[in-house]
Amino acid sequence: MNLAEHYTQIRKYSEKICAPLATEDYVVQPIADVSPPKWHLGHTTWFFETFVLKPNVTGYQEFDENYNYVFNSYYETVGNRVIRTDRGNLSRPSVADIYKYRAYVDEAMVKFLAQPIDGELKELITLGFNHEQQHQELLITDIKYILGNNPLFPAYDDHWKEDSSIRNENDFVTIEEGVYEIGYQGDDFHFDNELNRHKVYLNEFSISTALVNNAEYLEFINAGGYQNFNYWHAEGWDWVKTNSISAPMYWHLIDGGWFNYTFAGLKVLDKNLALSHISYYEAYAFASWKGMRLPTEFEWEIAAEHFNWGQRWEWTESAYLPYPGFSKAPGAIGEYNGKFMVNQKVLRGASIATPENHSRVTYRNFFHPNLRWQFTGIRLVK
Amino acid sequence: MNLAEHYTQIRKYSEKICAPLATEDYVVQPIADVSPPKWHLGHTTWFFETFVLKPNVTGYQEFDENYNYVFNSYYETVGNRVIRTDRGNLSRPSVADIYKYRAYVDEAMVKFLAQPIDGELKELITLGFNHEQQHQELLITDIKYILGNNPLFPAYDDHWKEDSSIRNENDFVTIEEGVYEIGYQGDDFHFDNELNRHKVYLNEFSISTALVNNAEYLEFINAGGYQNFNYWHAEGWDWVKTNSISAPMYWHLIDGGWFNYTFAGLKVLDKNLALSHISYYEAYAFASWKGMRLPTEFEWEIAAEHFNWGQRWEWTESAYLPYPGFSKAPGAIGEYNGKFMVNQKVLRGASIATPENHSRVTYRNFFHPNLRWQFTGIRLVK
Amino acid sequence: MNLAEHYTQIRKYSEKICAPLATEDYVVQPIADVSPPKWHLGHTTWFFETFVLKPNVTGYQEFDENYNYVFNSYYETVGNRVIRTDRGNLSRPSVADIYKYRAYVDEAMVKFLAQPIDGELKELITLGFNHEQQHQELLITDIKYILGNNPLFPAYDDHWKEDSSIRNENDFVTIEEGVYEIGYQGDDFHFDNELNRHKVYLNEFSISTALVNNAEYLEFINAGGYQNFNYWHAEGWDWVKTNSISAPMYWHLIDGGWFNYTFAGLKVLDKNLALSHISYYEAYAFASWKGMRLPTEFEWEIAAEHFNWGQRWEWTESAYLPYPGFSKAPGAIGEYNGKFMVNQKVLRGASIATPENHSRVTYRNFFHPNLRWQFTGIRLVK
Amino acid sequence: MNLAEHYTQIRKYSEKICAPLATEDYVVQPIADVSPPKWHLGHTTWFFETFVLKPNVTGYQEFDENYNYVFNSYYETVGNRVIRTDRGNLSRPSVADIYKYRAYVDEAMVKFLAQPIDGELKELITLGFNHEQQHQELLITDIKYILGNNPLFPAYDDHWKEDSSIRNENDFVTIEEGVYEIGYQGDDFHFDNELNRHKVYLNEFSISTALVNNAEYLEFINAGGYQNFNYWHAEGWDWVKTNSISAPMYWHLIDGGWFNYTFAGLKVLDKNLALSHISYYEAYAFASWKGMRLPTEFEWEIAAEHFNWGQRWEWTESAYLPYPGFSKAPGAIGEYNGKFMVNQKVLRGASIATPENHSRVTYRNFFHPNLRWQFTGIRLVK
Repeated sequence: MNLAEHYTQIRKYSEKICAPLATEDYVVQPIADVSPPKWHLGHTTWFFETFVLKPNVTGYQEFDENYNYVFNSYYETVGNRVIRTDRGNLSRPSVADIYKYRAYVDEAMVKFLAQPIDGELKELITLGFNHEQQHQELLITDIKYILGNNPLFPAYDDHWKEDSSIRNENDFVTIEEGVYEIGYQGDDFHFDNELNRHKVYLNEFSISTALVNNAEYLEFINAGGYQNFNYWHAEGWDWVKTNSISAPMYWHLIDGGWFNYTFAGLKVLDKNLALSHISYYEAYAFASWKGMRLPTEFEWEIAAEHFNWGQRWEWTESAYLPYPGFSKAPGAIGEYNGKFMVNQKVLRGASIATPENHSRVTYRNFFHPNLRWQFTGIRLVK
Repeated sequence: MNLAEHYTQIRKYSEKICAPLATEDYVVQPIADVSPPKWHLGHTTWFFETFVLKPNVTGYQEFDENYNYVFNSYYETVGNRVIRTDRGNLSRPSVADIYKYRAYVDEAMVKFLAQPIDGELKELITLGFNHEQQHQELLITDIKYILGNNPLFPAYDDHWKEDSSIRNENDFVTIEEGVYEIGYQGDDFHFDNELNRHKVYLNEFSISTALVNNAEYLEFINAGGYQNFNYWHAEGWDWVKTNSISAPMYWHLIDGGWFNYTFAGLKVLDKNLALSHISYYEAYAFASWKGMRLPTEFEWEIAAEHFNWGQRWEWTESAYLPYPGFSKAPGAIGEYNGKFMVNQKVLRGASIATPENHSRVTYRNFFHPNLRWQFTGIRLVK
Repeated sequence: MNLAEHYTQIRKYSEKICAPLATEDYVVQPIADVSPPKWHLGHTTWFFETFVLKPNVTGYQEFDENYNYVFNSYYETVGNRVIRTDRGNLSRPSVADIYKYRAYVDEAMVKFLAQPIDGELKELITLGFNHEQQHQELLITDIKYILGNNPLFPAYDDHWKEDSSIRNENDFVTIEEGVYEIGYQGDDFHFDNELNRHKVYLNEFSISTALVNNAEYLEFINAGGYQNFNYWHAEGWDWVKTNSISAPMYWHLIDGGWFNYTFAGLKVLDKNLALSHISYYEAYAFASWKGMRLPTEFEWEIAAEHFNWGQRWEWTESAYLPYPGFSKAPGAIGEYNGKFMVNQKVLRGASIATPENHSRVTYRNFFHPNLRWQFTGIRLVK
Repeated sequence: MNLAEHYTQIRKYSEKICAPLATEDYVVQPIADVSPPKWHLGHTTWFFETFVLKPNVTGYQEFDENYNYVFNSYYETVGNRVIRTDRGNLSRPSVADIYKYRAYVDEAMVKFLAQPIDGELKELITLGFNHEQQHQELLITDIKYILGNNPLFPAYDDHWKEDSSIRNENDFVTIEEGVYEIGYQGDDFHFDNELNRHKVYLNEFSISTALVNNAEYLEFINAGGYQNFNYWHAEGWDWVKTNSISAPMYWHLIDGGWFNYTFAGLKVLDKNLALSHISYYEAYAFASWKGMRLPTEFEWEIAAEHFNWGQRWEWTESAYLPYPGFSKAPGAIGEYNGKFMVNQKVLRGASIATPENHSRVTYRNFFHPNLRWQFTGIRLVK
């Protein structure tokens, strides 16, 4: 697949994700972390226009000069921007305008990609592909939040069903003590935060080959896990109290029975399914209650060849920090990862929302420990 | 015009107001005071369904039982409701669904109104008409806020123009000291807060026959009015400082020139036009700077026959309090006015957004002193 | 009593109020409205130093130039100041330093007052006396808050007891409809907000000769008054919910019995005592539940000769607004009253904390409707 | 030194720290992180009474049963407590009462410690010693905050002077790549968070033998370091903007010259002195500007034999996480360290406020990345 085909394939997929939406669903931002779908569609387009077309295509005519202000996310280098919490206050540009913007930029990009492209520019374009894939995952999780927190519980896809039969035995595999190598190695795309490849020393540990499922988590709930501070970090306990948390996101106790909002609407909770939509605080508390712990990201990376992964992003015990020798690129691209390396937790694996071929064993995802709207789950270590 | 025709006329006007909107414009709630237009369209419909159709039409089939939760505003009597600040987080019901809801309820209403209706029920329906008219005014001011705070400054109507030539001479008319009667008298519709008609004693005062215009207010700005605490209430001064206020809402200083967002988009400020979109705090400060004051609502009501009014809601010095003998109706309808009679200021007159025949000389509008998104202006007294 | 003697008498009384305090009690500010007692002692002294000594005594040597910053309250005219919520964060100046400051200023003042003083200067000094008396009342109510919200419930005076036998019959006296005169008349001290004396028209009303007592208010509580939104203003109801209010301030339900923090410590609730420490919201809700209402400040002023008043500040239905012809003095003194005339309610009468000879029938006290730490009570009108 | 002597020595030192204070200085809590000195004195006493005397001394008579509520800090196991932000609102117990409390508990403790004590109980008492030493450091830093944020800038000790001549050459020492051992080893006191001793793999690195001094940090300021987002984490940049940060805590720019609040009062900034009172965000930004980085806590621990440390707590790049095999003790003592292991940064070394013999090379201090009131400094790695 050549670069232009690759580009087109990725761009089309973003639009496919949004196909089932009503126009209104593109607009709202119920919490700061959840951006309006139309914003994602515009922002990913702005990325290609700003970093590829404007600097490289002579005479390129910007689609609309105001869009830089509207669709910039956090790039301080590229000028002022709508503050993040205001994205849901903008009714314009309309959804139709944004699709026109996409078509306009796509046409220019496909034309541009017809010529031979190499070196740094190719790397930058490939970063744009991966950037759009990250927003594809956010589109899916943000749409779930928008529909799943609506009192009418509208479905995204009536026929949607997650396969709960794909499941490993709940065995533990033991990894021996020793020096291991961590981080990306190879010539394909990878993020700067996966480098440098470096050595770490691991003690012996045993890691589960299966993710925690809903049945196991219900035991924690029924055992009073949300009422006993002993299992929690101090700030996790504050979070439980302040927000009156008593179950994973999207779980509803109705007339004594547990229901779960899924993309097909509100359904009876499937107990065999891998647990999802829990915060790091809950992951930690559950593990404490079990007398176990979460893996570090290093343990996970070394052990990952022994189990299937990919249904859920897996909270690790590791904080998101630079690897030895990490250095960020100059300019706007350098704002990609490094500046978030404080007060976040690493997640490893991939989720059902992650685009195919986007993740890999060295991939480092990261979120604040209180967030639950991603498909986040638990793997135990003892 | 019979009741059914009156109903239809009023209902159509709400939809006419929204006709120029894009679907996206119906959805957003940029500040708590500004509700999404689709919410207004649903809420006014819910009013007729809840208070007229459900109690009075045998076998009436509710359109959707969830709508009570979605479209109730502040009626504690009628059950739970979406909290006010969450209205802009709901992408559903869609705009199309709400228009279906309107058509469904309209059909049932028109059928119901074909029979002879009298007494309390007629009063209730007439209240529903006036309720919808109040939301028509809010539709207009909320649409202005939604478009006028968008960085693209989209127009609502490219040909819209406010006539700045209709203007009285800036004369003062003097009203003699004495006992006057205040409040509604007659048999037509009026709100409970306009009763009882009662006597007040007024001292002699002179009131301007014209509203303050933009040129006069610019003098206040240029004289440093926003920098001198002496003109302001203590809490008005805090409001100026906290919110960095330096001009009326919708005014923009661009390259040294003043612009104003209007329904036709961003335009050079028309200095002859009556000032609008100022808070009570600003009205008070401007009057102090002039060495004058605002009228009380009683002075206004007595003097109103001496001038044209209706372009702007006029801030008065009066707090919104019950008239002697005021008593609120029982049940949900009683929640209409009385429970807001604390910490608000009375406005008199009407604005360009007020539906025809909705206001009258005894009409009492009320808002918190910091609010500016209504078409609010100033009339001076000395 | 000459001016110097009057000065000394008033100044000594402030210190007498503080005599039972531990040093620590002078320092804390548990809520923004409650200032540290040492701040009151310093601020009232600063008033005389700033407005009397510095402009009028040649060669007067300021005690400490930093004190202007520390003890200014809200006078924008006189320069920067410690923000109000930071008063409790200042351990210095120490209590001993502030008593030295008082002695220093008192010596200079007594010396200064030995000469004949007249006209505006005498008025200003008399204003200083009344200013200090207002802070004496605040000293008492702030001390009650500081001790009464301490988990150890320390007593201020073990022998303190409020006389609950002084109580009128609960009769209603009827005032006839007509034109009445309101506002201060005479040559003695009065605040600017009591002027101009002016005519008002009152409808006939009947007003209770007694204040509501604790027994009556308990009936309201037991009747579910705090659980029924119908009795409350919308913002009163929000206040109840947000702050989980279920009884007057200082009331505690312990093992099924009601207790009340008094200056003698925590005591069994005296049911015969006049109700105290309630907000305007609660006063309004109680009156609504009774099917009655609160008096306006004008009704109160006209009816006051028919009952004893002075145990409690009485919430009125009136908002705090300027009288006809009100104008504020120029300079810092003009910041005294006028700039607070928005969003506050008028209280009439006086409380057990009010210094003797400080209040009068035309006196207008004012507070925000949610505040309860003053000795506030209820008189009903029907 | 036997246990009773050791106890007495440590307890006396807390009181020695407070000796220069005025009573008022013991009371205030200007920010949530800074507790009133009297609270520290009471809380450390409560620790011995609650965990040693009450469970182990038959017939022990509690000093005051209300003190558990007042002096518990964060131990959920031991019951309710005054919320942390309310400590500065309590004027009682008085300072004198707290010294009586200390004397009462000290007498009982010394008597109790006269008998032979071993095993877990000895460990617990030693934990109490270290606990009190930690609060001694907080007493010093909290007193500095209380006095240093007072507009009068009172001195704690007029003769106090920090020696700026004790300073290494600014050389870098290089540590070779390899497997190293980290964590406490031995039989003396240590915290649970220093265990298990475990192996880590370190890459080669060069670490400065000197701390950054004020002159070097001034260069960063003068180079616009606080105005360039490139050097900062995204949340560090938000912190700078939100709090208008432009220099280390206690630095004041007066008439063009830099001053520094020290325990001797406000003084001209000593440029040779080791930089202090900066947040992790500032430490990171400074290192970025230098083209260097902060050490990890593992690098620091291995390299520490090559330099003198102890003047400043040194921010590391490491997040505060459990070591392999870490497990917390059961009961209240188990709440000591583990529950804070999220969203905090590790500091290594010791400061001029740290009691002698309290720190060690494996000691792990931890704070949130925005805090500056500790004596925190920077050591660079390249």
